[in-house]
Amino acid sequence: MQLGSIEAGGTKFVCAVGDENYHTQSRQVIPTTTPRETLAAVNAYFAQFPALKAMGIASFGPIEIRRHSPKYGYITNTPKPGWSNTDFVGAIRQQFKGPIAWTTDVNGSAYGEYVLASLFNEKIASLVYYTVGTGVGAGVVENGQFLGTLGHPEMGHVYVKRHPDDLNFKGICPFHGDCLEGLISGPTFEARLGKPGKDVPLTDHVFDILAYYIAQAAIQSTLTIRPNKIVFGGGVISEPLLVKVRAQFKQLLHDYVAVGPLDQYLTMPQAKDNGSATIGNYALALKEYNR
Amino acid sequence: MQLGSIEAGGTKFVCAVGDENYHTQSRQVIPTTTPRETLAAVNAYFAQFPALKAMGIASFGPIEIRRHSPKYGYITNTPKPGWSNTDFVGAIRQQFKGPIAWTTDVNGSAYGEYVLASLFNEKIASLVYYTVGTGVGAGVVENGQFLGTLGHPEMGHVYVKRHPDDLNFKGICPFHGDCLEGLISGPTFEARLGKPGKDVPLTDHVFDILAYYIAQAAIQSTLTIRPNKIVFGGGVISEPLLVKVRAQFKQLLHDYVAVGPLDQYLTMPQAKDNGSATIGNYALALKEYNR
Repeated sequence: MQLGSIEAGGTKFVCAVGDENYHTQSRQVIPTTTPRETLAAVNAYFAQFPALKAMGIASFGPIEIRRHSPKYGYITNTPKPGWSNTDFVGAIRQQFKGPIAWTTDVNGSAYGEYVLASLFNEKIASLVYYTVGTGVGAGVVENGQFLGTLGHPEMGHVYVKRHPDDLNFKGICPFHGDCLEGLISGPTFEARLGKPGKDVPLTDHVFDILAYYIAQAAIQSTLTIRPNKIVFGGGVISEPLLVKVRAQFKQLLHDYVAVGPLDQYLTMPQAKDNGSATIGNYALALKEYNR
Repeated sequence: MQLGSIEAGGTKFVCAVGDENYHTQSRQVIPTTTPRETLAAVNAYFAQFPALKAMGIASFGPIEIRRHSPKYGYITNTPKPGWSNTDFVGAIRQQFKGPIAWTTDVNGSAYGEYVLASLFNEKIASLVYYTVGTGVGAGVVENGQFLGTLGHPEMGHVYVKRHPDDLNFKGICPFHGDCLEGLISGPTFEARLGKPGKDVPLTDHVFDILAYYIAQAAIQSTLTIRPNKIVFGGGVISEPLLVKVRAQFKQLLHDYVAVGPLDQYLTMPQAKDNGSATIGNYALALKEYNR
Protein backbone atom coordinates (compact mmCIF):
# COMPACT_ATOMS: atom_id res chain seq x y z
CA MET A 1 0.00 0.00 0.00
CA GLN A 2 1.45 3.36 -1.05
CA LEU A 3 1.12 6.34 1.29
CA GLY A 4 2.34 9.88 0.71
CA SER A 5 3.99 12.31 3.12
CA ILE A 6 4.61 16.04 2.84
CA GLU A 7 6.62 17.71 5.58
CA ALA A 8 6.28 21.38 4.73
CA GLY A 9 8.85 23.68 6.31
CA GLY A 10 9.88 27.27 5.84
CA THR A 11 12.97 26.39 3.80
CA LYS A 12 12.11 23.03 2.25
CA PHE A 13 9.32 20.55 1.59
CA VAL A 14 10.25 16.92 2.19
CA CYS A 15 8.01 14.70 0.06
CA ALA A 16 8.06 10.95 0.41
CA VAL A 17 6.21 7.79 -0.53
CA GLY A 18 6.19 4.83 1.82
CA ASP A 19 4.06 1.96 3.01
CA GLU A 20 1.94 0.96 6.00
CA ASN A 21 5.07 -0.38 7.71
CA TYR A 22 6.57 3.12 7.53
CA HIS A 23 9.27 2.15 5.02
CA THR A 24 10.11 4.97 2.61
CA GLN A 25 10.60 3.94 -1.01
CA SER A 26 11.00 7.38 -2.58
CA ARG A 27 11.88 10.81 -1.25
CA GLN A 28 12.31 14.24 -2.77
CA VAL A 29 13.26 17.59 -1.25
CA ILE A 30 11.70 20.67 -2.83
CA PRO A 31 12.79 24.21 -1.86
CA THR A 32 10.14 26.49 -0.35
CA THR A 33 9.82 29.39 -2.79
CA THR A 34 6.35 30.64 -3.76
CA PRO A 35 3.20 28.63 -3.03
CA ARG A 36 2.47 28.32 -6.77
CA GLU A 37 5.93 27.06 -7.69
CA THR A 38 6.50 24.81 -4.66
CA LEU A 39 3.07 23.19 -4.66
CA ALA A 40 3.27 22.58 -8.43
CA ALA A 41 6.58 20.75 -7.88
CA VAL A 42 4.99 18.74 -5.05
CA ASN A 43 2.08 17.73 -7.29
CA ALA A 44 4.47 16.81 -10.11
CA TYR A 45 6.37 14.54 -7.72
CA PHE A 46 3.29 12.70 -6.47
CA ALA A 47 1.87 12.39 -10.01
CA GLN A 48 4.53 9.69 -10.49
CA PHE A 49 2.68 7.48 -8.00
CA PRO A 50 -0.82 6.76 -9.39
CA ALA A 51 -1.29 3.91 -6.86
CA LEU A 52 -1.03 6.31 -3.89
CA LYS A 53 -3.91 5.55 -1.49
CA ALA A 54 -3.73 8.43 1.00
CA MET A 55 -1.56 11.36 1.98
CA GLY A 56 -0.41 12.98 5.22
CA ILE A 57 0.63 16.63 5.33
CA ALA A 58 2.48 18.18 8.28
CA SER A 59 2.88 21.88 7.63
CA PHE A 60 4.49 24.96 9.14
CA GLY A 61 1.86 27.34 10.42
CA PRO A 62 -0.24 28.73 11.75
CA ILE A 63 -2.72 26.58 9.85
CA GLU A 64 -6.47 26.00 10.01
CA ILE A 65 -7.16 22.49 11.32
CA ARG A 66 -10.83 22.76 12.36
CA ARG A 67 -12.71 20.60 9.87
CA HIS A 68 -15.86 22.75 9.99
CA SER A 69 -13.98 25.93 9.04
CA PRO A 70 -14.27 27.24 5.45
CA LYS A 71 -10.50 27.81 5.65
CA TYR A 72 -9.74 24.17 6.61
CA GLY A 73 -6.53 23.13 4.90
CA TYR A 74 -5.13 26.68 4.68
CA ILE A 75 -1.90 28.15 5.94
CA THR A 76 -3.33 31.25 7.62
CA ASN A 77 -1.49 34.40 8.80
CA THR A 78 2.09 33.13 8.65
CA PRO A 79 5.08 35.47 8.88
CA LYS A 80 6.59 33.50 5.94
CA PRO A 81 6.41 35.98 3.00
CA GLY A 82 3.95 35.04 0.27
CA TRP A 83 2.43 32.09 2.14
CA SER A 84 -0.35 33.73 4.15
CA ASN A 85 -3.84 32.52 3.25
CA THR A 86 -2.60 29.65 1.05
CA ASP A 87 -5.07 26.83 0.33
CA PHE A 88 -2.49 24.07 0.76
CA VAL A 89 -4.84 21.08 0.87
CA GLY A 90 -6.92 22.52 -1.99
CA ALA A 91 -3.81 22.77 -4.18
CA ILE A 92 -2.83 19.16 -3.45
CA ARG A 93 -6.39 17.97 -4.17
CA GLN A 94 -6.09 19.34 -7.70
CA GLN A 95 -3.75 16.44 -8.41
CA PHE A 96 -4.42 13.84 -5.69
CA LYS A 97 -8.03 12.71 -5.22
CA GLY A 98 -7.68 10.35 -2.22
CA PRO A 99 -7.96 11.01 1.54
CA ILE A 100 -5.63 13.66 2.97
CA ALA A 101 -4.65 14.04 6.65
CA TRP A 102 -3.73 17.62 7.54
CA THR A 103 -1.93 18.84 10.64
CA THR A 104 1.00 20.92 11.89
CA ASP A 105 4.66 19.99 11.43
CA VAL A 106 5.05 19.39 15.17
CA ASN A 107 1.83 17.38 15.43
CA GLY A 108 3.12 15.21 12.58
CA SER A 109 6.38 14.68 14.45
CA ALA A 110 4.53 14.03 17.72
CA TYR A 111 2.42 11.40 16.00
CA GLY A 112 5.49 9.77 14.43
CA GLU A 113 7.18 9.46 17.81
CA TYR A 114 3.93 8.18 19.35
CA VAL A 115 3.74 5.48 16.68
CA LEU A 116 7.42 4.59 17.07
CA ALA A 117 7.04 4.25 20.84
CA SER A 118 4.24 1.72 20.30
CA LEU A 119 6.38 -0.18 17.78
CA PHE A 120 9.12 -0.38 20.41
CA ASN A 121 6.53 -1.72 22.87
CA GLU A 122 6.52 1.31 25.12
CA LYS A 123 3.13 1.75 26.77
CA ILE A 124 2.35 5.26 25.64
CA ALA A 125 -1.02 6.98 25.86
CA SER A 126 0.24 10.55 25.51
CA LEU A 127 3.31 12.29 24.16
CA VAL A 128 4.48 15.89 23.75
CA TYR A 129 6.89 16.84 20.96
CA TYR A 130 8.78 20.15 21.09
CA THR A 131 10.84 21.50 18.24
CA VAL A 132 13.48 24.07 19.12
CA GLY A 133 14.96 25.47 15.93
CA THR A 134 14.39 28.68 13.97
CA GLY A 135 11.10 28.78 15.84
CA VAL A 136 9.72 26.88 18.82
CA GLY A 137 6.55 24.81 18.68
CA ALA A 138 4.95 21.73 20.16
CA GLY A 139 2.41 19.07 19.32
CA VAL A 140 0.53 16.84 21.73
CA VAL A 141 -0.96 13.38 21.14
CA GLU A 142 -3.40 12.08 23.76
CA ASN A 143 -4.96 8.65 23.17
CA GLY A 144 -4.31 8.91 19.45
CA GLN A 145 -5.87 12.38 19.12
CA PHE A 146 -4.25 15.79 18.86
CA LEU A 147 -4.83 18.27 21.65
CA GLY A 148 -6.49 21.55 20.73
CA THR A 149 -10.06 22.74 20.24
CA LEU A 150 -9.82 26.34 18.98
CA GLY A 151 -6.74 25.37 16.97
CA HIS A 152 -3.36 23.68 17.34
CA PRO A 153 -1.06 24.30 20.31
CA GLU A 154 1.33 27.26 20.19
CA MET A 155 3.40 26.34 23.21
CA GLY A 156 6.44 28.15 21.85
CA HIS A 157 4.95 31.44 23.05
CA VAL A 158 4.39 30.80 26.76
CA TYR A 159 6.25 32.87 29.35
CA VAL A 160 8.82 31.45 31.77
CA LYS A 161 10.66 32.57 34.87
CA ARG A 162 13.79 34.41 33.76
CA HIS A 163 17.24 33.04 34.56
CA PRO A 164 19.10 35.35 36.97
CA ASP A 165 22.09 35.59 34.59
CA ASP A 166 19.87 36.46 31.62
CA LEU A 167 17.74 39.31 32.94
CA ASN A 168 19.14 41.90 30.54
CA PHE A 169 18.28 39.92 27.39
CA LYS A 170 15.03 41.26 26.00
CA GLY A 171 14.20 38.25 23.82
CA ILE A 172 13.63 38.28 20.07
CA CYS A 173 10.02 37.24 19.51
CA PRO A 174 8.45 40.01 17.41
CA PHE A 175 5.12 39.41 19.17
CA HIS A 176 6.12 38.76 22.78
CA GLY A 177 9.78 39.66 23.28
CA ASP A 178 10.87 37.21 25.98
CA CYS A 179 8.39 34.37 25.50
CA LEU A 180 9.95 30.88 25.25
CA GLU A 181 10.64 31.22 21.51
CA GLY A 182 12.08 34.68 22.09
CA LEU A 183 14.52 33.19 24.62
CA ILE A 184 15.59 29.81 23.19
CA SER A 185 15.11 29.68 19.41
CA GLY A 186 18.16 29.25 17.17
CA PRO A 187 18.52 32.96 16.29
CA THR A 188 18.89 33.85 20.00
CA PHE A 189 22.56 32.73 19.81
CA GLU A 190 23.28 35.51 17.35
CA ALA A 191 21.24 37.97 19.45
CA ARG A 192 22.97 37.08 22.73
CA LEU A 193 26.51 36.27 21.61
CA GLY A 194 26.90 37.79 18.15
CA LYS A 195 27.60 34.44 16.51
CA PRO A 196 25.52 31.52 15.23
CA GLY A 197 24.74 28.57 17.50
CA LYS A 198 26.99 26.21 15.55
CA ASP A 199 29.98 28.32 16.65
CA VAL A 200 29.05 28.29 20.36
CA PRO A 201 30.73 25.49 22.36
CA LEU A 202 28.48 23.36 24.56
CA THR A 203 30.56 24.46 27.54
CA ASP A 204 29.23 28.04 27.14
CA HIS A 205 27.02 29.18 30.03
CA VAL A 206 24.29 30.08 27.53
CA PHE A 207 23.39 26.39 27.39
CA ASP A 208 22.67 26.41 31.14
CA ILE A 209 20.32 29.32 30.50
CA LEU A 210 18.60 27.53 27.60
CA ALA A 211 18.30 24.37 29.70
CA TYR A 212 16.65 26.37 32.49
CA TYR A 213 13.98 27.63 30.09
CA ILE A 214 13.49 24.32 28.27
CA ALA A 215 13.11 22.57 31.64
CA GLN A 216 10.34 25.02 32.57
CA ALA A 217 8.55 24.29 29.30
CA ALA A 218 8.79 20.59 30.12
CA ILE A 219 7.43 21.28 33.62
CA GLN A 220 4.48 23.17 32.16
CA SER A 221 3.68 20.23 29.86
CA THR A 222 4.22 17.74 32.65
CA LEU A 223 1.92 19.46 35.12
CA THR A 224 -0.76 20.26 32.52
CA ILE A 225 -0.88 17.10 30.41
CA ARG A 226 0.86 14.51 32.63
CA PRO A 227 2.16 12.80 29.46
CA ASN A 228 4.10 9.55 29.26
CA LYS A 229 6.95 11.19 27.42
CA ILE A 230 8.32 14.51 26.14
CA VAL A 231 10.44 14.45 22.97
CA PHE A 232 12.68 17.32 21.83
CA GLY A 233 13.72 17.83 18.22
CA GLY A 234 15.06 20.74 16.16
CA GLY A 235 18.49 22.18 15.47
CA VAL A 236 19.11 23.64 18.93
CA ILE A 237 18.60 20.30 20.70
CA SER A 238 21.46 17.90 21.40
CA GLU A 239 21.95 15.10 23.90
CA PRO A 240 24.45 17.17 25.97
CA LEU A 241 21.87 19.97 26.18
CA LEU A 242 19.19 17.47 27.26
CA VAL A 243 21.50 16.28 30.05
CA LYS A 244 21.43 19.85 31.39
CA VAL A 245 17.65 20.07 30.84
CA ARG A 246 17.06 16.91 32.88
CA ALA A 247 19.15 18.29 35.76
CA GLN A 248 17.24 21.59 35.78
CA PHE A 249 13.92 19.79 35.42
CA LYS A 250 14.69 17.65 38.45
CA GLN A 251 15.67 20.63 40.55
CA LEU A 252 12.72 22.82 39.52
CA LEU A 253 10.05 20.09 39.73
CA HIS A 254 11.38 18.91 43.08
CA ASP A 255 9.86 15.43 42.53
CA TYR A 256 6.40 16.95 42.92
CA VAL A 257 4.90 14.36 40.58
CA ALA A 258 6.38 11.05 39.42
CA VAL A 259 7.45 10.84 35.77
CA GLY A 260 9.76 7.81 35.77
CA PRO A 261 13.44 7.79 34.77
CA LEU A 262 14.27 11.20 33.27
CA ASP A 263 16.46 9.79 30.49
CA GLN A 264 13.37 7.98 29.18
CA TYR A 265 10.95 10.82 29.93
CA LEU A 266 12.83 13.73 28.32
CA THR A 267 14.39 12.39 25.13
CA MET A 268 15.63 13.00 21.61
CA PRO A 269 13.43 11.63 18.78
CA GLN A 270 13.60 7.90 18.05
CA ALA A 271 13.19 8.52 14.31
CA LYS A 272 16.49 8.85 12.48
CA ASP A 273 17.44 11.86 10.31
CA ASN A 274 14.58 14.14 11.43
CA GLY A 275 12.17 11.50 10.11
CA SER A 276 9.52 11.76 12.86
CA ALA A 277 7.06 13.76 10.78
CA THR A 278 7.36 11.47 7.74
CA ILE A 279 6.50 8.44 9.87
CA GLY A 280 3.69 10.39 11.51
CA ASN A 281 2.36 11.37 8.08
CA TYR A 282 2.24 7.76 6.88
CA ALA A 283 0.37 6.77 10.05
CA LEU A 284 -2.04 9.70 9.78
CA ALA A 285 -2.61 9.02 6.07
CA LEU A 286 -3.47 5.42 6.91
CA LYS A 287 -5.81 6.55 9.68
CA GLU A 288 -7.53 8.98 7.30
CA TYR A 289 -7.84 6.19 4.71
CA ASN A 290 -9.57 3.96 7.30
CA ARG A 291 -11.83 6.73 8.55
CA MET B 1 -33.08 8.94 40.11
CA GLN B 2 -30.96 9.65 43.18
CA LEU B 3 -27.27 10.52 42.74
CA GLY B 4 -24.74 11.27 45.46
CA SER B 5 -22.00 13.90 45.56
CA ILE B 6 -19.02 14.28 47.87
CA GLU B 7 -16.86 17.37 47.50
CA ALA B 8 -13.97 16.64 49.81
CA GLY B 9 -11.91 19.64 50.89
CA GLY B 10 -9.23 20.28 53.46
CA THR B 11 -11.63 21.96 55.90
CA LYS B 12 -15.01 20.45 55.03
CA PHE B 13 -16.76 17.71 53.09
CA VAL B 14 -19.89 18.84 51.24
CA CYS B 15 -22.19 15.84 50.80
CA ALA B 16 -25.33 16.09 48.68
CA VAL B 17 -28.02 14.03 47.04
CA GLY B 18 -29.60 15.20 43.80
CA ASP B 19 -31.05 13.95 40.56
CA GLU B 20 -30.13 13.59 36.91
CA ASN B 21 -31.30 17.17 36.30
CA TYR B 22 -28.71 18.37 38.82
CA HIS B 23 -31.29 19.46 41.39
CA THR B 24 -30.07 18.99 44.97
CA GLN B 25 -32.67 17.62 47.41
CA SER B 26 -30.44 17.17 50.47
CA ARG B 27 -27.08 18.57 51.53
CA GLN B 28 -24.86 18.18 54.57
CA VAL B 29 -21.52 19.74 55.48
CA ILE B 30 -19.15 17.59 57.53
CA PRO B 31 -15.92 19.00 59.01
CA THR B 32 -12.64 17.45 57.86
CA THR B 33 -11.09 15.94 60.99
CA THR B 34 -9.58 12.45 60.82
CA PRO B 35 -10.25 10.07 57.90
CA ARG B 36 -11.96 7.58 60.26
CA GLU B 37 -14.29 10.15 61.83
CA THR B 38 -15.08 12.16 58.69
CA LEU B 39 -15.64 9.18 56.40
CA ALA B 40 -17.85 7.49 59.02
CA ALA B 41 -20.01 10.63 59.14
CA VAL B 42 -20.16 10.67 55.34
CA ASN B 43 -21.29 7.03 55.25
CA ALA B 44 -23.90 7.71 57.96
CA TYR B 45 -25.28 10.57 55.87
CA PHE B 46 -25.61 8.53 52.66
CA ALA B 47 -27.07 5.53 54.56
CA GLN B 48 -30.24 7.63 54.77
CA PHE B 49 -30.67 7.25 51.00
CA PRO B 50 -31.04 3.54 50.18
CA ALA B 51 -32.31 4.39 46.66
CA LEU B 52 -29.02 6.08 45.70
CA LYS B 53 -27.94 4.78 42.27
CA ALA B 54 -24.40 6.16 41.90
CA MET B 55 -21.97 8.52 43.55
CA GLY B 56 -19.44 11.11 42.40
CA ILE B 57 -16.47 12.05 44.57
CA ALA B 58 -14.29 15.11 43.91
CA SER B 59 -11.45 15.13 46.40
CA PHE B 60 -8.52 17.26 47.48
CA GLY B 61 -5.26 15.59 46.54
CA PRO B 62 -2.97 14.42 45.34
CA ILE B 63 -5.06 11.31 44.62
CA GLU B 64 -4.59 8.14 42.60
CA ILE B 65 -6.91 8.21 39.58
CA ARG B 66 -5.34 5.54 37.35
CA ARG B 67 -7.82 2.68 37.33
CA HIS B 68 -5.17 0.00 36.95
CA SER B 69 -3.27 1.15 40.04
CA PRO B 70 -3.60 -0.89 43.28
CA LYS B 71 -3.92 2.48 45.03
CA TYR B 72 -6.84 3.63 42.85
CA GLY B 73 -9.27 5.58 45.03
CA TYR B 74 -6.62 6.67 47.54
CA ILE B 75 -5.59 10.09 48.71
CA THR B 76 -1.81 9.67 48.36
CA ASN B 77 1.00 11.83 49.82
CA THR B 78 -1.04 14.86 50.85
CA PRO B 79 0.37 17.58 53.13
CA LYS B 80 -2.98 17.45 55.04
CA PRO B 81 -2.03 15.82 58.40
CA GLY B 82 -3.44 12.34 58.92
CA TRP B 83 -4.84 11.95 55.39
CA SER B 84 -1.87 10.52 53.47
CA ASN B 85 -2.45 7.05 52.06
CA THR B 86 -6.21 7.05 52.83
CA ASP B 87 -8.37 4.57 50.90
CA PHE B 88 -11.21 7.03 50.34
CA VAL B 89 -13.20 5.06 47.76
CA GLY B 90 -12.68 1.83 49.71
CA ALA B 91 -14.14 3.45 52.84
CA ILE B 92 -17.20 4.67 50.94
CA ARG B 93 -17.70 1.24 49.35
CA GLN B 94 -18.10 -0.27 52.81
CA GLN B 95 -21.50 1.41 52.93
CA PHE B 96 -22.41 2.22 49.30
CA LYS B 97 -22.34 -0.68 46.84
CA GLY B 98 -23.18 1.13 43.57
CA PRO B 99 -20.91 2.73 40.93
CA ILE B 100 -18.56 5.46 42.17
CA ALA B 101 -16.89 8.12 40.02
CA TRP B 102 -13.62 9.35 41.50
CA THR B 103 -11.65 12.45 40.53
CA THR B 104 -10.00 15.60 41.89
CA ASP B 105 -11.90 18.55 43.36
CA VAL B 106 -10.89 20.75 40.41
CA ASN B 107 -11.75 18.08 37.84
CA GLY B 108 -15.18 17.82 39.48
CA SER B 109 -15.61 21.59 39.20
CA ALA B 110 -14.32 21.59 35.61
CA TYR B 111 -16.86 18.91 34.70
CA GLY B 112 -19.67 20.82 36.40
CA GLU B 113 -18.89 23.96 34.43
CA TYR B 114 -18.55 21.90 31.23
CA VAL B 115 -22.02 20.43 31.83
CA LEU B 116 -23.52 23.83 32.68
CA ALA B 117 -22.08 25.37 29.52
CA SER B 118 -23.85 22.68 27.46
CA LEU B 119 -27.10 23.31 29.35
CA PHE B 120 -26.79 26.99 28.45
CA ASN B 121 -26.25 25.95 24.81
CA GLU B 122 -22.66 27.04 24.61
CA LYS B 123 -20.75 24.92 22.13
CA ILE B 124 -17.99 23.67 24.38
CA ALA B 125 -15.58 20.84 23.59
CA SER B 126 -12.95 21.73 26.17
CA LEU B 127 -12.74 23.73 29.38
CA VAL B 128 -10.08 24.53 31.97
CA TYR B 129 -11.05 25.24 35.58
CA TYR B 130 -8.59 26.92 37.94
CA THR B 131 -9.13 27.29 41.65
CA VAL B 132 -7.15 30.00 43.42
CA GLY B 133 -7.66 29.70 47.15
CA THR B 134 -5.59 28.21 49.96
CA GLY B 135 -3.91 26.27 47.16
CA VAL B 136 -3.94 26.57 43.39
CA GLY B 137 -5.03 23.76 41.10
CA ALA B 138 -6.67 23.13 37.77
CA GLY B 139 -8.74 20.52 35.99
CA VAL B 140 -9.19 20.08 32.25
CA VAL B 141 -12.08 18.52 30.34
CA GLU B 142 -11.50 17.69 26.68
CA ASN B 143 -14.35 16.06 24.74
CA GLY B 144 -15.89 14.78 27.96
CA GLN B 145 -12.64 13.26 29.24
CA PHE B 146 -10.20 14.51 31.84
CA LEU B 147 -6.70 15.38 30.71
CA GLY B 148 -3.82 13.46 32.31
CA THR B 149 -2.14 10.11 31.72
CA LEU B 150 0.36 9.67 34.56
CA GLY B 151 -2.07 11.37 36.93
CA HIS B 152 -4.20 14.50 37.27
CA PRO B 153 -2.93 17.97 36.33
CA GLU B 154 -0.99 19.96 38.93
CA MET B 155 -0.99 23.26 37.09
CA GLY B 156 -0.73 25.21 40.33
CA HIS B 157 3.00 24.48 40.40
CA VAL B 158 4.18 25.85 37.05
CA TYR B 159 6.65 28.73 36.92
CA VAL B 160 5.85 32.17 35.51
CA LYS B 161 7.72 35.31 34.54
CA ARG B 162 8.09 37.46 37.64
CA HIS B 163 6.41 40.86 37.84
CA PRO B 164 9.03 43.65 37.97
CA ASP B 165 7.47 45.08 41.17
CA ASP B 166 7.48 41.67 42.89
CA LEU B 167 11.06 40.46 42.39
CA ASN B 168 11.91 40.47 46.10
CA PHE B 169 9.04 38.18 47.11
CA LYS B 170 10.38 34.65 47.41
CA GLY B 171 7.03 32.87 47.21
CA ILE B 172 5.57 30.52 49.80
CA CYS B 173 5.29 27.10 48.14
CA PRO B 174 7.17 24.68 50.42
CA PHE B 175 8.21 22.66 47.35
CA HIS B 176 8.96 25.32 44.74
CA GLY B 177 9.07 28.76 46.38
CA ASP B 178 7.85 31.03 43.63
CA CYS B 179 5.79 28.68 41.50
CA LEU B 180 2.28 29.91 40.63
CA GLU B 181 0.78 28.67 43.92
CA GLY B 182 3.68 30.20 45.82
CA LEU B 183 2.91 33.58 44.24
CA ILE B 184 -0.90 33.82 44.10
CA SER B 185 -2.54 31.52 46.67
CA GLY B 186 -4.61 33.08 49.48
CA PRO B 187 -1.85 32.93 52.13
CA THR B 188 0.43 35.09 49.92
CA PHE B 189 -1.51 38.17 51.11
CA GLU B 190 -0.32 37.56 54.67
CA ALA B 191 3.21 36.81 53.40
CA ARG B 192 3.45 39.94 51.24
CA LEU B 193 1.40 42.46 53.22
CA GLY B 194 1.13 41.08 56.74
CA LYS B 195 -2.66 40.89 56.63
CA PRO B 196 -5.25 38.47 55.25
CA GLY B 197 -6.63 38.93 51.73
CA LYS B 198 -10.07 39.94 53.01
CA ASP B 199 -8.48 43.07 54.52
CA VAL B 200 -6.69 44.10 51.32
CA PRO B 201 -8.67 46.56 49.15
CA LEU B 202 -9.03 45.72 45.45
CA THR B 203 -7.27 49.00 44.66
CA ASP B 204 -4.02 47.63 46.16
CA HIS B 205 -1.25 47.15 43.58
CA VAL B 206 -0.89 43.52 44.72
CA PHE B 207 -3.93 42.70 42.61
CA ASP B 208 -2.12 43.93 39.48
CA ILE B 209 0.69 41.55 40.39
CA LEU B 210 -1.70 38.63 40.95
CA ALA B 211 -3.46 39.44 37.66
CA TYR B 212 -0.12 39.37 35.84
CA TYR B 213 0.58 35.85 37.11
CA ILE B 214 -2.96 34.54 36.64
CA ALA B 215 -2.94 35.89 33.07
CA GLN B 216 0.26 33.94 32.38
CA ALA B 217 -1.35 30.75 33.71
CA ALA B 218 -4.28 31.39 31.36
CA ILE B 219 -1.85 31.94 28.47
CA GLN B 220 -0.11 28.64 29.24
CA SER B 221 -3.47 26.84 29.16
CA THR B 222 -4.57 28.70 26.07
CA LEU B 223 -1.45 27.91 24.05
CA THR B 224 -1.23 24.29 25.25
CA ILE B 225 -4.86 23.16 25.22
CA ARG B 226 -6.57 25.78 23.03
CA PRO B 227 -9.74 25.35 25.13
CA ASN B 228 -13.11 26.96 24.51
CA LYS B 229 -13.17 28.52 27.95
CA ILE B 230 -11.17 29.05 31.15
CA VAL B 231 -13.11 29.33 34.42
CA PHE B 232 -11.65 30.70 37.67
CA GLY B 233 -13.01 29.81 41.09
CA GLY B 234 -11.71 29.93 44.65
CA GLY B 235 -11.57 32.55 47.38
CA VAL B 236 -8.95 34.81 45.77
CA ILE B 237 -10.97 35.26 42.55
CA SER B 238 -13.43 38.10 42.07
CA GLU B 239 -14.91 39.79 39.02
CA PRO B 240 -12.83 42.97 39.57
CA LEU B 241 -9.67 40.82 39.68
CA LEU B 242 -10.74 39.04 36.48
CA VAL B 243 -11.12 42.42 34.79
CA LYS B 244 -7.41 43.00 35.51
CA VAL B 245 -6.56 39.46 34.41
CA ARG B 246 -8.27 39.98 31.05
CA ALA B 247 -6.34 43.21 30.45
CA GLN B 248 -3.00 41.54 31.26
CA PHE B 249 -3.92 38.48 29.19
CA LYS B 250 -4.66 40.66 26.18
CA GLN B 251 -1.39 42.54 26.51
CA LEU B 252 0.77 39.44 27.09
CA LEU B 253 -0.85 37.25 24.42
CA HIS B 254 -0.75 40.07 21.88
CA ASP B 255 -3.65 38.50 19.92
CA TYR B 256 -1.31 35.68 18.88
CA VAL B 257 -4.23 33.21 18.72
CA ALA B 258 -7.96 33.97 18.59
CA VAL B 259 -9.98 33.09 21.69
CA GLY B 260 -13.17 35.12 21.18
CA PRO B 261 -14.51 37.82 23.53
CA LEU B 262 -12.40 37.77 26.70
CA ASP B 263 -15.35 38.30 29.05
CA GLN B 264 -16.74 34.99 27.80
CA TYR B 265 -13.37 33.24 27.60
CA LEU B 266 -11.99 34.06 31.07
CA THR B 267 -14.91 33.84 33.49
CA MET B 268 -16.20 33.18 36.98
CA PRO B 269 -18.09 29.87 37.48
CA GLN B 270 -21.68 29.67 36.25
CA ALA B 271 -22.67 27.45 39.21
CA LYS B 272 -23.99 29.41 42.18
CA ASP B 273 -22.52 29.14 45.73
CA ASN B 274 -19.37 27.19 44.76
CA GLY B 275 -21.64 24.48 43.40
CA SER B 276 -19.60 23.53 40.31
CA ALA B 277 -18.17 20.34 41.82
CA THR B 278 -21.53 19.12 43.10
CA ILE B 279 -23.05 19.44 39.63
CA GLY B 280 -19.97 17.81 38.14
CA ASN B 281 -20.27 14.95 40.63
CA TYR B 282 -23.90 14.27 39.71
CA ALA B 283 -22.95 14.21 36.02
CA LEU B 284 -19.93 11.98 36.63
CA ALA B 285 -21.98 9.65 38.84
CA LEU B 286 -24.54 9.33 36.06
CA LYS B 287 -21.80 8.67 33.52
CA GLU B 288 -20.30 5.97 35.77
CA TYR B 289 -23.76 4.44 36.21
CA ASN B 290 -24.17 4.22 32.41
CA ARG B 291 -20.66 2.88 31.83
